[in-house]
Amino acid sequence: MKLGMIGLGKMGFNLVLNLLSHGHQIVVSDLNLERGEQLAQQGAFPASSVEDLVAKLERPRMVWVMVPAGPVVEGVIDTLAGLLDEGDIIIEGGNSHYKESIARAERLEPLGIHFFDAGTSGGTEGAEFGACFMIGGNREIFTTIEPLFRDLAVDQGYLYAGTNGSGHFLKMIHNGIEYGMMQSIAEGFELLEKSSFDFNYEDVARVWSNGSVIRGWLMELAQSAFSKDPKLSGIKGVMQSSGEGKWTVQTALDLEASTPVIALSLLMRYRSLEENTFHGKVVAALRNEFGGHAVVPDN
Amino acid sequence: MKLGMIGLGKMGFNLVLNLLSHGHQIVVSDLNLERGEQLAQQGAFPASSVEDLVAKLERPRMVWVMVPAGPVVEGVIDTLAGLLDEGDIIIEGGNSHYKESIARAERLEPLGIHFFDAGTSGGTEGAEFGACFMIGGNREIFTTIEPLFRDLAVDQGYLYAGTNGSGHFLKMIHNGIEYGMMQSIAEGFELLEKSSFDFNYEDVARVWSNGSVIRGWLMELAQSAFSKDPKLSGIKGVMQSSGEGKWTVQTALDLEASTPVIALSLLMRYRSLEENTFHGKVVAALRNEFGGHAVVPDN
Amino acid sequence: MKLGMIGLGKMGFNLVLNLLSHGHQIVVSDLNLERGEQLAQQGAFPASSVEDLVAKLERPRMVWVMVPAGPVVEGVIDTLAGLLDEGDIIIEGGNSHYKESIARAERLEPLGIHFFDAGTSGGTEGAEFGACFMIGGNREIFTTIEPLFRDLAVDQGYLYAGTNGSGHFLKMIHNGIEYGMMQSIAEGFELLEKSSFDFNYEDVARVWSNGSVIRGWLMELAQSAFSKDPKLSGIKGVMQSSGEGKWTVQTALDLEASTPVIALSLLMRYRSLEENTFHGKVVAALRNEFGGHAVVPDN
Amino acid sequence: MKLGMIGLGKMGFNLVLNLLSHGHQIVVSDLNLERGEQLAQQGAFPASSVEDLVAKLERPRMVWVMVPAGPVVEGVIDTLAGLLDEGDIIIEGGNSHYKESIARAERLEPLGIHFFDAGTSGGTEGAEFGACFMIGGNREIFTTIEPLFRDLAVDQGYLYAGTNGSGHFLKMIHNGIEYGMMQSIAEGFELLEKSSFDFNYEDVARVWSNGSVIRGWLMELAQSAFSKDPKLSGIKGVMQSSGEGKWTVQTALDLEASTPVIALSLLMRYRSLEENTFHGKVVAALRNEFGGHAVVPDN
Repeated sequence: MKLGMIGLGKMGFNLVLNLLSHGHQIVVSDLNLERGEQLAQQGAFPASSVEDLVAKLERPRMVWVMVPAGPVVEGVIDTLAGLLDEGDIIIEGGNSHYKESIARAERLEPLGIHFFDAGTSGGTEGAEFGACFMIGGNREIFTTIEPLFRDLAVDQGYLYAGTNGSGHFLKMIHNGIEYGMMQSIAEGFELLEKSSFDFNYEDVARVWSNGSVIRGWLMELAQSAFSKDPKLSGIKGVMQSSGEGKWTVQTALDLEASTPVIALSLLMRYRSLEENTFHGKVVAALRNEFGGHAVVPDN
Repeated sequence: MKLGMIGLGKMGFNLVLNLLSHGHQIVVSDLNLERGEQLAQQGAFPASSVEDLVAKLERPRMVWVMVPAGPVVEGVIDTLAGLLDEGDIIIEGGNSHYKESIARAERLEPLGIHFFDAGTSGGTEGAEFGACFMIGGNREIFTTIEPLFRDLAVDQGYLYAGTNGSGHFLKMIHNGIEYGMMQSIAEGFELLEKSSFDFNYEDVARVWSNGSVIRGWLMELAQSAFSKDPKLSGIKGVMQSSGEGKWTVQTALDLEASTPVIALSLLMRYRSLEENTFHGKVVAALRNEFGGHAVVPDN
Repeated sequence: MKLGMIGLGKMGFNLVLNLLSHGHQIVVSDLNLERGEQLAQQGAFPASSVEDLVAKLERPRMVWVMVPAGPVVEGVIDTLAGLLDEGDIIIEGGNSHYKESIARAERLEPLGIHFFDAGTSGGTEGAEFGACFMIGGNREIFTTIEPLFRDLAVDQGYLYAGTNGSGHFLKMIHNGIEYGMMQSIAEGFELLEKSSFDFNYEDVARVWSNGSVIRGWLMELAQSAFSKDPKLSGIKGVMQSSGEGKWTVQTALDLEASTPVIALSLLMRYRSLEENTFHGKVVAALRNEFGGHAVVPDN
Repeated sequence: MKLGMIGLGKMGFNLVLNLLSHGHQIVVSDLNLERGEQLAQQGAFPASSVEDLVAKLERPRMVWVMVPAGPVVEGVIDTLAGLLDEGDIIIEGGNSHYKESIARAERLEPLGIHFFDAGTSGGTEGAEFGACFMIGGNREIFTTIEPLFRDLAVDQGYLYAGTNGSGHFLKMIHNGIEYGMMQSIAEGFELLEKSSFDFNYEDVARVWSNGSVIRGWLMELAQSAFSKDPKLSGIKGVMQSSGEGKWTVQTALDLEASTPVIALSLLMRYRSLEENTFHGKVVAALRNEFGGHAVVPDN
């Protein structure tokens, strides 16, 4: 098939390599033109702009958008809305909030443009060699784009999830689960580290990756990380987050769902951004007030 | 009444002042003899040792033990067990684990020594001017010592709680609740601190201490703390703990009781003891592995 | 002073009684005219409508709005915006989200109407006999209305908190703390209930209300509740919530603040709305899958 | 190799099948003699008692104990201590607390009996077709028994973990991680269930099992569970636990390690054992006291 790919970052770039390897024709575009040129050497057709990209496609045009969520993706879709025609298809593969995806689909519908929200998981490696896709949108039109996902995904690694928003909703929940699983694994290794035993963490992650109940890709990644830095001494315990965990907890609040583990995984990330907390100061001050317990001075 | 007080630390010392102010005769003993001499100036009778203290009392003797929990209190009670006789009374007012109090009562029973476990709350100020006591032991014998508690406690601030161990059990749970309440208050002030408003925390604690649903002594103590250091800038957010919160959570595990807030209050204290965590390193490493997310280097 | 009170529910009604007892002249209005007539017997001037209420006041008019947050208060303020003039004052005393209060103040400012967001705590009893108020708005204009709060509040029970929104922000955080404190107390009593001791909970709440570190109004309310129903056997463990706890957690997420105890207090409320959970089914099913552990059948 | 297997429950039985398939000679014993006879048909040598089993082995004897943790395993090891000689080997493969394993090793050492604590993961299926083993004990002697684990485990699925206790410690932590991962997955599906989308959970678990970041055996088991009961309508949300999660949290308390997610996973299991909670009653009663909020009556 022939399609356009807008956004050639870590994920978009690798998806193009993956698509090219399956014989698709890909017109590519990125603000950084070098990225497109690199892909041209692999057989992609570089476009100089979104307009140029659209011009290089045939109707019904198919455009995959793989740019940062928020204003960037909003801008790209606005531009596409002005360039595409009835029957054309947009696949939005970034980490957008599912409510925005629903709104976009509703905005594009009167124009006859079919919108799909495609949550993508599997990391940059997955993007190139086989990832996992959760797609929301019109079920019938989906059959048109299904071959793309069949090629991009690992076996059974794509799902038509339902109406618009369902793809990004599933991806959001996936990330919420991911937060919980990562924190679970991390707490386990913290207990090993604080114990009086002398474990080799790479070995532990390896044995847990082979035959145990908790085996899975995250444990394999832990093995890989420990193989490079046995005690992770070069990495500070600062746990950044990029939004989907927060959205999951916000969604839990809206649904009145009790999700303590996902919520705590997020709150511990926030906690890790600070070395000294105001709540800690308050508790220390209160202990001093009622019991005369010494405080640690802050310099 | 006449009784002995062993242990003249912050709490024991003030309890003696309180008892003296109510006209009781107190024989006092502490490893630090100066403490006894200070109290002698207030009318107490200093003893040079536990043996001397027991010798200075009349039968049935009453001895209040107010020393650190664990081996110290164990040693004092062992000594007393060898010195006291049938019908004598020991009041153990420290922060012992309730199971130890049950064991002590059982050990002293064949000797005819009546043992009471008295949980004490109210801080050092309360010890002097009126505190809160939760007492476990023999209900009939309790009437003998009840006048002491009537004098030491604020109005209705003492309770015969039940059989041995119930006093220290109640005190333990009290402290568990205290952990949760302190963390709740502290989280509230953290949100104020992180907000874009410019609150005066002493004023806030004052208004919340007057007429609000969350008024209480802890809020008054917060007001006091903020009056001395408006932003608590001199205090580090390190939250120590002295054992009873941990016992409460252990008890919850044994009772299969779901007490997330008390448990989290304790776990956040442990978290505050570290600036950099191993679990944080693991999560950061995993994010780097699957998504290429940058880590913060640790120097 | 003379002012209008719109909304004569549990809180508004009692605030009027409180104001009347301090010699203020109050024009009252409620959709339920009977409420106004009841207050007329206490000396209030009933108005038949918001328009009538405004007409019965003199410039600069002062109107206190005490109606449910959300669309109701929005409607009342819209109406008032059309009736009031430059220099008039609106005090919004309900449980509105602080961001809405900021928006309302901004909307009324061009009209010259001064808007104050007044968070109110202390329950219905406090409304009548002395409550706690946190007020946001213009600092100079606040001096005009300060005498009202001086009369309505218990000693030092009111605070000019800062610019618009700060009053409702403080009230929101107050409620977040309240959630945490209530859950802490409740978990403590659950541990008593699950223990092998035989405590009288009214007695326990009483002793903890007298001299302990955790004394405060909530503990006194616990005492009152247990005095009516010693084991709370008539009350189901369903913990409703009315929004401010949720807003507090949402705010924590927006501020990237780690507030595990307030968050868990809310999540346990949500948990209590269900007898059977889907997450429980999933865990039970997984245990069955890997270990053959028996599940409890659902009928 | 020739060895004895004591305990032919779900795990022990399958381990014997696994060992037989690799050509080992296994003497088997169980209180239920039928189990041994079943295995005799597969080539095992049934023993009528532990004494008989020991008699059927040659020195240095190797005995694998696979019986319930606690008093049962204690009894079996006591018996073996009286029957085995210097140089013999005991492998304890159950879910014992690591501190008990350390104690057992110390007790057996003066007798010259080598003790190994072998944590086993992988479920009953893994026991038969390849599981995961974490083994603590003497490193040199371990080489003697290593061929057994090489045969029983999946590739790289066994680890000499360190001194005695380290095997069961690792298994305990593994289970703690497992609790957290299961709760994470379960919360994710609860959010799907409460959403307004109409997901097919088997499909979701399948797509997440293929190429996603959260792929792993637990997700595959979720897929299997949903394939049998699409909404798990036949399973009640009661989450039992068998001890290792509790031990993990107790260990965290002892190590002063902040492990909120593992702790909450356990506490939510306890919460699931009750439909109506006492803490819920207390919160509902308090809300009624201060705000007049209605309670749900308990019948």
